[in-house]
Amino acid sequence: MQKVNLSEKLSLFKDYWNPRIVGELNRQHVKLVKFKGEFVWHKHDNEDEMFLVVSGKFKMELRDKTIELKEGEFLIVPKGIEHRPVAEEEVSVMLFEPATTLNTGDTKGYLTKEHLEKI
Amino acid sequence: MQKVNLSEKLSLFKDYWNPRIVGELNRQHVKLVKFKGEFVWHKHDNEDEMFLVVSGKFKMELRDKTIELKEGEFLIVPKGIEHRPVAEEEVSVMLFEPATTLNTGDTKGYLTKEHLEKI
Repeated sequence: MQKVNLSEKLSLFKDYWNPRIVGELNRQHVKLVKFKGEFVWHKHDNEDEMFLVVSGKFKMELRDKTIELKEGEFLIVPKGIEHRPVAEEEVSVMLFEPATTLNTGDTKGYLTKEHLEKI
Repeated sequence: MQKVNLSEKLSLFKDYWNPRIVGELNRQHVKLVKFKGEFVWHKHDNEDEMFLVVSGKFKMELRDKTIELKEGEFLIVPKGIEHRPVAEEEVSVMLFEPATTLNTGDTKGYLTKEHLEKI
């Protein structure tokens, strides 16, 4: 059993839209990811997803509104809800979601990461 | 769907060892709690538990070692492992754990909170 320091883990990678697994509990994963630019519209049919901003800010676009999130704020996107993260500047985000969650949900493509690295 | 600001939620209560529910996803709860002093030794037979320090620091005592956690660090305590949080000064912590989790685990007593408030 070891503690995890978010800043240390974030210093280990630089690429965007490529979540790393930093913890696992109750069949859920704790992930860290950096966003910059626009992701793809997608939804997760079976998984609710939580986004907690560790540093920076980004906008979560939903079909009916946009929610701006800054450091120390989180949003839970329920299963089935289409969403698209957009970050003008680099942002670091912690994700909580079931281990079954695919980053691009139902929109598979070049941004899809089938196998996430554990760091 | 609304975002949650951790600082705003933390400003809504002052008491120690009384977790509030601030989010729910995939049958897991996101909770905020303030610690000060010594908690009771306990374990959770069926739930892994995650502690993320939002501000301040505390020590997680385990039977074989003690892990000091500060802001931006988290620890996952697996089910069945006895633990006791100790905080010399006030610390604010985010918990991530199954909705079934009782704060004092198998050690019911005056610190047990059967019904948590949602804020």
